[in-house]
Amino acid sequence: MCEKEISQAVIGRLPRYFRYLGELKEQNVERISSQELSELMKVTASQIRQDFNNFGGFGQQGYGYNVNYLYQEIGKILGLGKKHHLVIIGAGNLGQALANYMNFEKRGFLVCGIFDIKKELIGKTLRGIAIRPIEELEQFIRANDVDIAVLTIPKNGAVLMAEKLVRCGIKAILNFAHVDLNVPEGVQVENVHLSDSLMKLSYNIHKYEENVERANEKGVQ
Amino acid sequence: MCEKEISQAVIGRLPRYFRYLGELKEQNVERISSQELSELMKVTASQIRQDFNNFGGFGQQGYGYNVNYLYQEIGKILGLGKKHHLVIIGAGNLGQALANYMNFEKRGFLVCGIFDIKKELIGKTLRGIAIRPIEELEQFIRANDVDIAVLTIPKNGAVLMAEKLVRCGIKAILNFAHVDLNVPEGVQVENVHLSDSLMKLSYNIHKYEENVERANEKGVQ
Repeated sequence: MCEKEISQAVIGRLPRYFRYLGELKEQNVERISSQELSELMKVTASQIRQDFNNFGGFGQQGYGYNVNYLYQEIGKILGLGKKHHLVIIGAGNLGQALANYMNFEKRGFLVCGIFDIKKELIGKTLRGIAIRPIEELEQFIRANDVDIAVLTIPKNGAVLMAEKLVRCGIKAILNFAHVDLNVPEGVQVENVHLSDSLMKLSYNIHKYEENVERANEKGVQ
Repeated sequence: MCEKEISQAVIGRLPRYFRYLGELKEQNVERISSQELSELMKVTASQIRQDFNNFGGFGQQGYGYNVNYLYQEIGKILGLGKKHHLVIIGAGNLGQALANYMNFEKRGFLVCGIFDIKKELIGKTLRGIAIRPIEELEQFIRANDVDIAVLTIPKNGAVLMAEKLVRCGIKAILNFAHVDLNVPEGVQVENVHLSDSLMKLSYNIHKYEENVERANEKGVQ
């Protein structure tokens, strides 16, 4: 692969391409032009070409892209050829929802352990995976080659838990706690801050209403 | 407020400022310079000043920002002065997790209804909120001035459900279904695609390992 640094904005768009290509593949579509893909995904064809050029362009301009080839290549770039072992920390409703979400496995993300501090949860199973006491976490991560931890615990404990995970050699954290984690370079973090998403919606609702009001006032004048 | 269009990237950063300012307020910090805020939030001071300049800058350069004023102003910009009424559609684990998440209320997002198609769930309550049959959705939205819907149903039903919500006059959708929704202008959507976040982590894990390997090879030569 090329050596130049690819922006996180481009990386962030790859899973969406991958999803659409997977759906096209299921529909037995063999080739697609950037124009057709653009209409389907509601982004400009030039954006698509620019994004793909970061990875050498995937060829075949004019004839369109080979859907299966493109799907495979983007999958490889996303590192989906290799299986990932996940643990979920926090077996509350959110942790349980994620443990039950089969789609992760389809993409090669295998939930192999669930951990909690609550004694009454220990030993229960979710899809055959036992909930274990948090004391076993460190040994479990090392023994099972776990590379990703999903943090679904309250924010109070999350920062210390992240530090512990880093000491255990975890490579990435999907963080649902509403706090920023402090991890060294080389440990990847994706935050899912649901309140932040709601606030963004709130902003956009009000902005839209303001714009409509303003347009109406101008119409009246 | 100013008339120019503010980028969604800037808007997306406002909730994080709001969170940090809230924490500073709780710690009784009265003033903070962009330099101090920059160190705390690990973004550049120039980024902070640029972001704030979109809203007139919030004044007091040199003396630093008044924490409480800045918190209130950003809250106002985010539209948090007004209460929002939410419904959750899908009372599975994820819907239940969200219904139980008290933090939404603190920010003025009130869960007032939960809906599902599964008969065995109807009538159960989550934090005092009854799970209702989906047939009552339309009337409920109109009667309770609901402006935001949280979609936690499988992707098969999500597109049609979004269309129904639009017909009921919903203003915004927080979408957890792994599919893009088709809504008219003026209806706001935020997607939370958890598989996409995992794929991004996967990419960054592999990229980092490649870089380390490459650095090692160069070191050996």
